[in-house]
Amino acid sequence: MAQSVKPTLPQATSEMAASDTSAMTNNSLEQGDIAKATLAFEGRAAFDRLQALVAQDMGKVNDLIRARMSSQAAPLIPELAAHLIEAGGKRLRPVLTLAAAQLCGYQGEHHIRLAATVEFIHTATLLHDDVVDESDRRRGRASANILWGNKAPVLVGDYLFSRSFQLMVETDNIRVLDILAQASAVIAEGEVLQLTLANTISEDDRQYMQVIRGKTAALFEAATRVGAVIAQADPAKEQALTTYGDALGVAFQLVDDALDYGGTAAALGKNVGDDFREGKATLPVIHAYAQAGPQERAFWERCICKRKQEEGDLEQALDYLRAGGGIERTVARARAHVDEARAALDVFEPSPMRQALIDVAEFVISRAT
Amino acid sequence: MAQSVKPTLPQATSEMAASDTSAMTNNSLEQGDIAKATLAFEGRAAFDRLQALVAQDMGKVNDLIRARMSSQAAPLIPELAAHLIEAGGKRLRPVLTLAAAQLCGYQGEHHIRLAATVEFIHTATLLHDDVVDESDRRRGRASANILWGNKAPVLVGDYLFSRSFQLMVETDNIRVLDILAQASAVIAEGEVLQLTLANTISEDDRQYMQVIRGKTAALFEAATRVGAVIAQADPAKEQALTTYGDALGVAFQLVDDALDYGGTAAALGKNVGDDFREGKATLPVIHAYAQAGPQERAFWERCICKRKQEEGDLEQALDYLRAGGGIERTVARARAHVDEARAALDVFEPSPMRQALIDVAEFVISRAT
Repeated sequence: MAQSVKPTLPQATSEMAASDTSAMTNNSLEQGDIAKATLAFEGRAAFDRLQALVAQDMGKVNDLIRARMSSQAAPLIPELAAHLIEAGGKRLRPVLTLAAAQLCGYQGEHHIRLAATVEFIHTATLLHDDVVDESDRRRGRASANILWGNKAPVLVGDYLFSRSFQLMVETDNIRVLDILAQASAVIAEGEVLQLTLANTISEDDRQYMQVIRGKTAALFEAATRVGAVIAQADPAKEQALTTYGDALGVAFQLVDDALDYGGTAAALGKNVGDDFREGKATLPVIHAYAQAGPQERAFWERCICKRKQEEGDLEQALDYLRAGGGIERTVARARAHVDEARAALDVFEPSPMRQALIDVAEFVISRAT
Repeated sequence: MAQSVKPTLPQATSEMAASDTSAMTNNSLEQGDIAKATLAFEGRAAFDRLQALVAQDMGKVNDLIRARMSSQAAPLIPELAAHLIEAGGKRLRPVLTLAAAQLCGYQGEHHIRLAATVEFIHTATLLHDDVVDESDRRRGRASANILWGNKAPVLVGDYLFSRSFQLMVETDNIRVLDILAQASAVIAEGEVLQLTLANTISEDDRQYMQVIRGKTAALFEAATRVGAVIAQADPAKEQALTTYGDALGVAFQLVDDALDYGGTAAALGKNVGDDFREGKATLPVIHAYAQAGPQERAFWERCICKRKQEEGDLEQALDYLRAGGGIERTVARARAHVDEARAALDVFEPSPMRQALIDVAEFVISRAT
């Protein structure tokens, strides 16, 4: 792919690409910038290829989403839902459902419903998350809770959950319902766990891993798995896509948490340090804390648990993370999950779709390095 | 039932009875108090009889609720859920599911799951409602949002929704899932509609009726209907229990809204006037407004839409409602729905269960008079 070795990227066409571009800008294109730009560009190209392979189906999914987020009775519902859904999210989860179904040779129409289902679940979760986190930005816009207050996003989130539930019931497939019900429970439990872990810090990563499974991996896993199930794929293929979705989701969240400290470049960017400021102990910090001496431990406890932060603390945190390798170890962990995701797809014959899914997994890692 | 003609009631054993008793105390036992006490006592006795008929199943439902609201990962979930679930709600909705299944001769165990399902949906809705309404009391205790803030009740509500979803999937019955999915959507849409109608007033009751269907009738209807469906009742019986649940739910909410202005006795009690103070135009006010002259219209607009209320306004509102018959007309409307609920059960042979369901419908009206 010689043509991709160019640091000047064409205009972003997806949010994934857009956020990657800004991460690169933050890294101010210092050492290894050509290599990084290449990776990022190939990554975006990989996601574009995957999107292109499901583009026809995705058009139907978008139509269905628009139809089902409507409400004659309460125009506030489509208004608020559209603010988020039309804001140009990358639709990664529904794309994965469509891709999984297609990889398994599915010929019907239910995967359209399932793709819309996972997007509705995701959107409902974002609405409630932003209320709980008191967020003010989402997808480059003011978040719904800022514009409408907390009440409407709570209730519109519930409405989107109920719409997702209707959509999945229409597939008439009890196994699909079972998978999505389990995923919903893991997601909700993970959210509560995350809330109870706020402003705490631990030396072990067990609870953190449970949070990110709930936060990201459970829906990624369900998204790919239901694609296989609706296609009546054999058990080996269903398992492969289950493993792929879970591993991709875990890697995705690990990379997100590494990027919150600037990734392995660890340069300061405008979005760096959100988790730190909010007192969320993600894996980089857990790694650092586990091997810290008394002075560093006291630092993390003050900043994360007591949230008593002063000027220069974020820079100090980044120094500790650099010295202890907390970010590298987080990215290495993500790398292992990406390898697991890749390997899982060996059960499928080579095809452009299989390759696109492999490349998208690689792209996840390229964001962090 | 000569033995029930006694104004001194034995200690309440259910919330329904308790709230009725307090309404009576508020009415200060003036005219017709013996007759009212009789009605209330018979009403409570009716609910007690219904509860007794499903007592064995209800024990299993309570065990299942306790088991499924647990969480190894996040102990906050059972803690918060128990605060509400163990607070002694009357469990009217699960009782209705058990009763409907039993009336249709059901012999299996899935009705236990469905009863727990409807109680979880109800509880999740209450948690989110209290956040949205900024309520401070629920079932005689401080509400969850007061004790834990808004974040935990939003997320624990989501968890209970997902648990309800898992429970219903276990019945392996796609029609049941379809019914509960439609009900969830009606509930959520009604909640959003109610939010958008806050501090507005209308001469017609169309939107109000849609709100109370979402708020109360949709889950009552689904609760009785899934009991019939799981029992594989014939279409006439399923329809009868669908009609019964819906009509009972509408009547229940109409009576609640009449009681918020003291019922037809229109005496001032400690809970009278909540809707008025919050600027919610319920049916009594809609009736009054529709036939009001310019001065009265201005009064309602100031109090409900602008929420500019002064001392004496609630008394003025009650005077307008008395003069215009707003409360009587609301109760009369509830009466018509109770009659519809009764009549629907004609399709069943006489039995203690059918009689208990009829008596419970009568009890709903007895609360308001």
